[in-house]
Amino acid sequence: MRRFVVERSKNLIASLSRRSFAFEQRFSSYSDSSSSSSSSSVMSSTQSTSPVTLESINPKVLKCEYAVRGAIVTHAQHLQQELQTKPGSHPFDEILYCNIGNPQSLGQQPITFFREVLALCDHPNILDRSETQGLFSADAIERAWKILDQIPGRATGAYSHSQGIKGLRDSIAAGIAARDGFPADPNDIFLTDGASPGVHTMMQLLIRSEKDGILCPIPQYPLYSASIALHGGTLVPYYLDEATGWGLEISELKQQLEDAKSKGITVRSLVVINPGNPTGQVLAEDNQREIVEFCKKEGLVLLADEVYQEIVYVADKNFHSFKKISRSMGYGEEDVSLVSFHSISKGYYGECGKRGGYMEVTGFRADVREQIYKLASVNLCSNISGQILASLVMNPPKVGDESFESFAAEKDGILASLARRAKTLEDAFNSLEGVTCNKTEGAMYLFPRLHLPRKAIEAAKAAKTAPDAFYVRRLLDATGIVLVPGSGFGQVPGTWHFRCTVLPPEDKIPAVVSRLTAFHQGFMAEFRD
Amino acid sequence: MRRFVVERSKNLIASLSRRSFAFEQRFSSYSDSSSSSSSSSVMSSTQSTSPVTLESINPKVLKCEYAVRGAIVTHAQHLQQELQTKPGSHPFDEILYCNIGNPQSLGQQPITFFREVLALCDHPNILDRSETQGLFSADAIERAWKILDQIPGRATGAYSHSQGIKGLRDSIAAGIAARDGFPADPNDIFLTDGASPGVHTMMQLLIRSEKDGILCPIPQYPLYSASIALHGGTLVPYYLDEATGWGLEISELKQQLEDAKSKGITVRSLVVINPGNPTGQVLAEDNQREIVEFCKKEGLVLLADEVYQEIVYVADKNFHSFKKISRSMGYGEEDVSLVSFHSISKGYYGECGKRGGYMEVTGFRADVREQIYKLASVNLCSNISGQILASLVMNPPKVGDESFESFAAEKDGILASLARRAKTLEDAFNSLEGVTCNKTEGAMYLFPRLHLPRKAIEAAKAAKTAPDAFYVRRLLDATGIVLVPGSGFGQVPGTWHFRCTVLPPEDKIPAVVSRLTAFHQGFMAEFRD
Repeated sequence: MRRFVVERSKNLIASLSRRSFAFEQRFSSYSDSSSSSSSSSVMSSTQSTSPVTLESINPKVLKCEYAVRGAIVTHAQHLQQELQTKPGSHPFDEILYCNIGNPQSLGQQPITFFREVLALCDHPNILDRSETQGLFSADAIERAWKILDQIPGRATGAYSHSQGIKGLRDSIAAGIAARDGFPADPNDIFLTDGASPGVHTMMQLLIRSEKDGILCPIPQYPLYSASIALHGGTLVPYYLDEATGWGLEISELKQQLEDAKSKGITVRSLVVINPGNPTGQVLAEDNQREIVEFCKKEGLVLLADEVYQEIVYVADKNFHSFKKISRSMGYGEEDVSLVSFHSISKGYYGECGKRGGYMEVTGFRADVREQIYKLASVNLCSNISGQILASLVMNPPKVGDESFESFAAEKDGILASLARRAKTLEDAFNSLEGVTCNKTEGAMYLFPRLHLPRKAIEAAKAAKTAPDAFYVRRLLDATGIVLVPGSGFGQVPGTWHFRCTVLPPEDKIPAVVSRLTAFHQGFMAEFRD
Repeated sequence: MRRFVVERSKNLIASLSRRSFAFEQRFSSYSDSSSSSSSSSVMSSTQSTSPVTLESINPKVLKCEYAVRGAIVTHAQHLQQELQTKPGSHPFDEILYCNIGNPQSLGQQPITFFREVLALCDHPNILDRSETQGLFSADAIERAWKILDQIPGRATGAYSHSQGIKGLRDSIAAGIAARDGFPADPNDIFLTDGASPGVHTMMQLLIRSEKDGILCPIPQYPLYSASIALHGGTLVPYYLDEATGWGLEISELKQQLEDAKSKGITVRSLVVINPGNPTGQVLAEDNQREIVEFCKKEGLVLLADEVYQEIVYVADKNFHSFKKISRSMGYGEEDVSLVSFHSISKGYYGECGKRGGYMEVTGFRADVREQIYKLASVNLCSNISGQILASLVMNPPKVGDESFESFAAEKDGILASLARRAKTLEDAFNSLEGVTCNKTEGAMYLFPRLHLPRKAIEAAKAAKTAPDAFYVRRLLDATGIVLVPGSGFGQVPGTWHFRCTVLPPEDKIPAVVSRLTAFHQGFMAEFRD
């Protein structure tokens, strides 16, 4: 197998990124847009003549794209239906969703202790029944009682405080303090239905018009581009350097900031995703310090997406929260405005469907924070099951608890398996002709680069689609494997990638690799220049 | 006790509503705004010097108000803390939150069957254990199996389809069809985290600028004014007629629509809340037909808030969904764009904290509906526990099921108690000097009118607050009872109201009445002209 040289130099990035204000336009036209789908699952049988037309709706909605659930996924759902109604109608017998970080959809089992506590909180009537002792672990019963006592009136079906149940926020703050070695204030915690609503809240707060810019990594998780588009702001891209393992260079941040300023954009905030999505890199401490310093100097709100904090595969790197880094530099409330987002969807727990998470909001003026509180209040509160799970993931069983050993075995088993799967897939991608894949240090994704033959690019052009979307669609039709084209995340113009989760069940990885490899060889044979 | 004559005539409404475009300004200045609070629970101990100031955030956020969790509630939370730390520091020993429809926070118990199913879905490992037979009803176990089989891979911790789990949408569509006698399409159902996110989605879709108007009842539930403000549209008020039991007059709709048009506003949509919040009226079928006809003729999207559909107190009226009315008029997909919002938070179930609900979206063009699907996708999916509960409330136990009798007893007990409480409070309000209260026909609220003495109005003015907010604050400080001033919902200028839920526990109602009465007598004695 021949490995392509990663030819793109730092100078090239710089020259490309100077042109990058046309990014959003390119992004839209190349994106895996659901609006271009012809196989939507939401088509109506009867035609409406409603006066509400695409021309008369909010153009920000039209502009918004969300590739991880875009046309490819809609097409995959369509294929899945066909497999059910017409078995044997495709050259594969199942759809393998590698498009989204959704561990339990691919067979990952929930952590038993968490689900025990949740079930007991949902039906507390059984807590003091004798049969319950046989069905649930003693510490789960004890934890459920503790949580119920933290809920006013033990009412798990009541709206909570807009920021979430105070006792659960106390637990989460204690978990953050234990993680960081610096105190956390429960009044800084806003419990959310996953990380996404927290991100939307901050974008809604900060963005006044298209003259407000948000610095976002490219590649980025498309929630950010979608949220910025919906709130009418400007995405100011900074490119991660693929040649240095998706390195985040302060010089690139500065240059993009200056470039934005020169165009009349007021940059309000910097988004950092650590560990990276879709890129999988884990930031070095020194790098994080530079980032904090940059935000402080430039007066930017640091929006730290830290949802993959539990998933680091490499021995020589650890996750450090930006709050810990900031506090360890001696910076406090008065120095840096920082929001850390966390979620119960990721990590070894993978409780995506429960929609829980929190944001820790520090370094804001009291009157501005009251506005964040008001925004939280308009949605009343996040769901209580998600709130309970957020308190559990930040305070899992400890040594000595009855569940500790089984909990640790489940957790370590999942993390070790994720690491093995990541490595196997990384090696497999790197063994393909014309594919290069950086080492994944954390998170749940690989973002290999496709060095496509000219003929493939021309074929994509003829099919009126981006080359990576062309590749991904062909792969899906041939193998049932669902990836997301790199254009959905952003990439240096002229380069092509795709994102693949590391989540297929471990026993299916060999089949995934052989199907991918066979497809790729056929594709290259068909289009080789 | 003297009853004031409701002196406001239809002509007066018309003349006032013609001036009502200044409504939002007045609304803001009188509103129970959290930003004017001096007792926020989110104050930071250290002062931030963040460059993010009230002047540099999104002005739409500043403009948004949400009175049901505004300054009065923040003050009540503060008093509650004081009662805990300094017992006896106030002339009452508990805070009674009558500000928000949050039944379980005031002691309403969840429906056992729903919680049994939820707990089993949370921890399916126990489903085939023998102890489970003793702890859970047989039909709850059977329902849990059925629901698990509807979830791909039985993965209750996975993100679902963006619209919600298809099998659960099938159940909900079947429930709607059984309710209405007209078919419902599961592809029209979008499961949501309560009704609020669905309303936000539709506002986000429809509102392009302040030139887009949404016709909203006044008084209204402040979610609507908040959402319209956040999305930058214009609230076009139509006044409900207090003199005719909060009647909804088509002539008023027409007049406000014309008035808005003459000001360059494009009215996109009509919001109708039925049963009414905060006003408690239940629309007559004829009236609903007129409303559907009006929306069809004027090309308005009918946004039907039907979250109180299970709560009707009067024997001579029934709830009819707008979809049923529309279909019974012979109108289909091609005739009227209609969105019906429902929630698990209200009704006899009162599962506010679980954040579940759905919107049924009919009569939209396929390409516009794909945009709604995209918006749902950006937030991935609503929480699965809420999705499960939404399927349960639309398909509760039926005659013959093991749980049916106990379920029916719980449900009927709650509904009968709510009706008794509503009547007792209504009578109590009507017995107060200077208070008139319309009959509550449904929902969970009373919205009595305060005919305040001139001296009270002057005292409020001197205290720089609206007269109803002045009254409500004094009541809270004297009794611990939390109401919401009418200014938070909107009211005919110069009239004053408050909203009170019917949710205090039945055994506390006599105390509530006597405390309210004593306070009111003292207030009137103090300020009588």
